[in-house]
Amino acid sequence: MFTLVSFPVRYAETDQMGIVHHSNYPIWFEIGRTDHLRQLGRTYASLEEEGLLLPLVNLNCKYLAPAKYGDEIEVKTRIKKLTCVRIEFAYEVYNQQGTLLALGFTEHGWTDRKLKPINLSKKQPELYRLLQASL
Amino acid sequence: MFTLVSFPVRYAETDQMGIVHHSNYPIWFEIGRTDHLRQLGRTYASLEEEGLLLPLVNLNCKYLAPAKYGDEIEVKTRIKKLTCVRIEFAYEVYNQQGTLLALGFTEHGWTDRKLKPINLSKKQPELYRLLQASL
Amino acid sequence: MFTLVSFPVRYAETDQMGIVHHSNYPIWFEIGRTDHLRQLGRTYASLEEEGLLLPLVNLNCKYLAPAKYGDEIEVKTRIKKLTCVRIEFAYEVYNQQGTLLALGFTEHGWTDRKLKPINLSKKQPELYRLLQASL
Amino acid sequence: MFTLVSFPVRYAETDQMGIVHHSNYPIWFEIGRTDHLRQLGRTYASLEEEGLLLPLVNLNCKYLAPAKYGDEIEVKTRIKKLTCVRIEFAYEVYNQQGTLLALGFTEHGWTDRKLKPINLSKKQPELYRLLQASL
Repeated sequence: MFTLVSFPVRYAETDQMGIVHHSNYPIWFEIGRTDHLRQLGRTYASLEEEGLLLPLVNLNCKYLAPAKYGDEIEVKTRIKKLTCVRIEFAYEVYNQQGTLLALGFTEHGWTDRKLKPINLSKKQPELYRLLQASL
Repeated sequence: MFTLVSFPVRYAETDQMGIVHHSNYPIWFEIGRTDHLRQLGRTYASLEEEGLLLPLVNLNCKYLAPAKYGDEIEVKTRIKKLTCVRIEFAYEVYNQQGTLLALGFTEHGWTDRKLKPINLSKKQPELYRLLQASL
Repeated sequence: MFTLVSFPVRYAETDQMGIVHHSNYPIWFEIGRTDHLRQLGRTYASLEEEGLLLPLVNLNCKYLAPAKYGDEIEVKTRIKKLTCVRIEFAYEVYNQQGTLLALGFTEHGWTDRKLKPINLSKKQPELYRLLQASL
Repeated sequence: MFTLVSFPVRYAETDQMGIVHHSNYPIWFEIGRTDHLRQLGRTYASLEEEGLLLPLVNLNCKYLAPAKYGDEIEVKTRIKKLTCVRIEFAYEVYNQQGTLLALGFTEHGWTDRKLKPINLSKKQPELYRLLQASL
């Protein structure tokens, strides 16, 4: 299952090359995965309140075509892999013409508030089942 | 008393106008005031550990000339006003040629971790005296 | 006339105080004013293509209550003042409960691509009239 | 050959997890590679003036330990691979205790101002030789 979220490019996201600076794509990925969870019925804010954090351990982004100011960005997100201790999301970034701008993935560990690893299937079995069912 | 801190412009700070995006100046001001406190002998990190926060209540910035990629920025910071509940910093931003790029000030409340206002002269009398002496 | 635009807080916009970092409000103001122009029928991207830039000369923001992750932000924007060489926007920032989080204004000069001041009523009389009529 | 550049963590770079937000590491990598070029005798600003751009085509970052506010960051940069059309940089990010926080690489294409690929060894043979000699 994948989800879609879209938003306009912010002027502040451009750089003097006249395109969106590459450091914004990880932030767009984050919008993608938090919206993905929201569409599954769980907000990332509520997970944090319950003491569940998702720090990043690995990030990859391939840049295929530049995003420009004036573009409407669409991020397509899905869960690529889920284990008791890790979750991996995959992303595709498009502009309003449907051009694929970037491809990426992020890998995260499930941790408590002190960033100690936890076992999701034990700590939050319902969330674990919900995410599994969505694959 | 004023302090100086300098750093190069980051490419990511530019926008498609070919100049530094204005939203970076508040971040540069923050570098100025945290370095000001550090030069007075107190790090902002240590204040936070002691439960003392400084949320912003008012920000002003006048932009006189653009900062560009390749520039070495210098921020000149001083405490403009200090009361038991508020502190105000004033900033001047220069490039390496000594051109004044921006002028600004920020006003902050002294609060605890839950962002409740506190009286600095009661909660941290030594810090209060240190800051007063630096005016 | 005022316009409204809304968007969720991004996780990357928070800081370790647990609230949105103050440097994001100028970016939210920018979203407000570019959307204001869009709702008037002119995109900021098209203005730039015609060689018309709007660099910031003055920024003010008063922070009344913190924005938090999970909030849906609404920016209310209006043109406060318009002359042949300057434009001033005023902003109100609300969360989804209707709490006023911040108030601010930005002042901009009309310039060409080389950041030289121009007279808007001469260079783009139609745009000038459109903006005037919207006051 | 590798180069070192260091700078303090900015407060604005933290997030509500209490650590540096992962989207800042690509910006730190950028500081690393522009400083690497500077130490080789060429500023990135001068390359751009000569019409030579280095847009990113691939980014990877592995996050090993969190960076925190108060940390002094050191980025160790080297050129991993150089061809006529591409350049790849490798990065190691450390804190002041020498803890390895992150590992990453970025791959860039050599392009002109319109982002069209160019052959570096033909367009700028001296720069190509300089970079080759530094491997």
